[in-house]
Amino acid sequence: MQTRWADRYALRTQGMRSSAIRELLKVTAEPEVISFAGGLPGADLFPLDEFRRAYERVMGEHGPAALQYSTTEGERPLREMIARHTSRYGIVVTIDNVLITTGSQQALDLIGKVFINPGDHVLVERPTYLGALQAWSTYQAEYLTARIDEHGMRIDDLEAAFRGGPKFVYALPNFQNPAGVTLSLERREALVRLADEHGVPILEDDPYGQLRYDGDHLPSLVTLDAAYRGLGGPGYSGNVIYLSTFSKILAPGLRLGWVIGPPDVIQRLAQAKQGADLHTSTLVQLLAYEVARSGFLDRHVRRLRTAYAARRDAMLAAMAESFPPGVTWTRPAGGLFVWAALPSSLDANELLRSALEDKVAFVPGNPFFPDGSGRNMMRLNFTNSSVERIQQGIARLGRAIGRMSGSSA
Amino acid sequence: MQTRWADRYALRTQGMRSSAIRELLKVTAEPEVISFAGGLPGADLFPLDEFRRAYERVMGEHGPAALQYSTTEGERPLREMIARHTSRYGIVVTIDNVLITTGSQQALDLIGKVFINPGDHVLVERPTYLGALQAWSTYQAEYLTARIDEHGMRIDDLEAAFRGGPKFVYALPNFQNPAGVTLSLERREALVRLADEHGVPILEDDPYGQLRYDGDHLPSLVTLDAAYRGLGGPGYSGNVIYLSTFSKILAPGLRLGWVIGPPDVIQRLAQAKQGADLHTSTLVQLLAYEVARSGFLDRHVRRLRTAYAARRDAMLAAMAESFPPGVTWTRPAGGLFVWAALPSSLDANELLRSALEDKVAFVPGNPFFPDGSGRNMMRLNFTNSSVERIQQGIARLGRAIGRMSGSSA
Repeated sequence: MQTRWADRYALRTQGMRSSAIRELLKVTAEPEVISFAGGLPGADLFPLDEFRRAYERVMGEHGPAALQYSTTEGERPLREMIARHTSRYGIVVTIDNVLITTGSQQALDLIGKVFINPGDHVLVERPTYLGALQAWSTYQAEYLTARIDEHGMRIDDLEAAFRGGPKFVYALPNFQNPAGVTLSLERREALVRLADEHGVPILEDDPYGQLRYDGDHLPSLVTLDAAYRGLGGPGYSGNVIYLSTFSKILAPGLRLGWVIGPPDVIQRLAQAKQGADLHTSTLVQLLAYEVARSGFLDRHVRRLRTAYAARRDAMLAAMAESFPPGVTWTRPAGGLFVWAALPSSLDANELLRSALEDKVAFVPGNPFFPDGSGRNMMRLNFTNSSVERIQQGIARLGRAIGRMSGSSA
Repeated sequence: MQTRWADRYALRTQGMRSSAIRELLKVTAEPEVISFAGGLPGADLFPLDEFRRAYERVMGEHGPAALQYSTTEGERPLREMIARHTSRYGIVVTIDNVLITTGSQQALDLIGKVFINPGDHVLVERPTYLGALQAWSTYQAEYLTARIDEHGMRIDDLEAAFRGGPKFVYALPNFQNPAGVTLSLERREALVRLADEHGVPILEDDPYGQLRYDGDHLPSLVTLDAAYRGLGGPGYSGNVIYLSTFSKILAPGLRLGWVIGPPDVIQRLAQAKQGADLHTSTLVQLLAYEVARSGFLDRHVRRLRTAYAARRDAMLAAMAESFPPGVTWTRPAGGLFVWAALPSSLDANELLRSALEDKVAFVPGNPFFPDGSGRNMMRLNFTNSSVERIQQGIARLGRAIGRMSGSSA
């Protein structure tokens, strides 16, 4: 039944449709389905005992203040901890550089609200994180794109896209969602330099940076930008806004992320956040702080790396064994995802329907492309399944691909 | 230092300024300041022991699922509980009528995102909740207004404002923020009828409805609308979106609210919420559910009513004793606020500066008026101070008003 509200949607949201893929993937809640679909960390690795102890400390030390309204910018001890943590990586930030957000997704929404005029172009990787496209489409953003290869964004595409006059560049340098690739050091430096030359700021999204399984940590864009500009002192005020989150290193059900940026931008984002949800849950902030302090989080991240590396290896080995010739995939050095390409004649959306009959799920590639291309691609999450389930699930998926290849041949 | 980001703010947020009042009120964090400023419930009444027990139950029963991603619409048991609770008040809603939000403030933001085109008019009470104005100004809303008196929105103003073609009406029928007044039953019925005749939907914001200290509960607009339309069956699909929250009846630091609306609108708001923060904290939702179930919340609300009624009475008595002639104020039957009018020659913003020297704080009236009028008004919160602090604070404030009246005479 149409209601009075339903014929009054704003122009910006009239195009919103419930995603067909999202509807299909609702069945992944059934336990017999092996799901490589969500971007979920492994629930079996959540530190439940540490959360129990932390809750007792929060209630003991903060009492009612943990349940009361608090400041929009976030709890001071948590912001200080994040500033210290960030400062380990070669730039010196203060709490005035830090805003706490209700997950990184809120940071993407606030960036859209504060910066995007209808018709503004954002330069994104192709493919890129679909949640960013979703957040910014409601602000009527348009997109310039740079293809990615195994070393991340291609510099030739980047140079061309900069000439289109983007409002900002959106980059996921580490173990990118969805493709799992990492931007090389040379390209990071080129990106920082090119952005500066074109006078374009950079949004760096880094949910997975701590989850590296092979090779050495590469400097973040915010660090390279500070070095490039000679910003040695405390209080970063450069060209990059940096986003990260507790979702992948601790627990996504908290909904807790943060922004690092120039103080004037942090203030403006905080003003927008005040209208969006007043502040992030006080209790959640204090809980994460109590879990993370005293070095626990560093130890926990080391444990995650070991477990997730084994799951990634299991997935790559199973793919090599089960997938028919003609399917290719990335070998991520970290993060949560393997990205696979079917032969271009095959449609991953059709494969998903077939795979769900075999009780295995993934996300087809097209929602990660602003232009809806990438229909032969698929994103596979390896962090939320055991090695055994990964082996079973990839075998099922291999059979489903085999059936489709056979019928289309 | 201006950064590359700082010269790229979107048009909609270029006017955002840090509020002068907000800056002034930062001193209310000092313990010697008696603050009637924030819309804070009494932290001394938060049920800490119940939260401890509830956390143990959440961890015991849900374990890792309490820390994992969950659905955008919200946790099913919580939505079911809210649907049952709403159905006590004369309409039968199902979980498809319920969306969980990150506080009611997020619901206001999502309504703005989904419904407001730049230049659309929203019909609001004058004065009205400043957080709604803040949320909708970023979507470039304009305002039609209806004055309020002791019975709430004036019907003559409402009729005139409807002729201006509002996108929707925003009403706070119970113990309104900031003015503390309650919309009479006759006017509720008139509002529902007029809105229907003009084809305009209603947004009903009801954070305080449970906190009534005198008189009988009045039916909500959503209930009256269902009756008016003869919607007797399950699954409300009428003209009203209804908002409420756990902030005032349980704890605002959770950031947990809900929307009741027609299923198609709930779906569209959920799509917008997905881009805004994916979902509200799983842990917080389960925690509130565990605290609220088994009748605890009903008992707790009865306890709040008794304590808050005593604080309201103490404030009204102290005002009668300490405030100079020429100051008038409302006598709220519930909620959190008394609303006072200084003689029209006095400016509450100047009074605030003076009062802060005496270590007492309130919120001046003008931010609650879309046109910035109401400079002689002030909002006084009585729920977050003890009776003794209320008496002390009102005496200080009375002296500050007296000084100003004297110097302006």
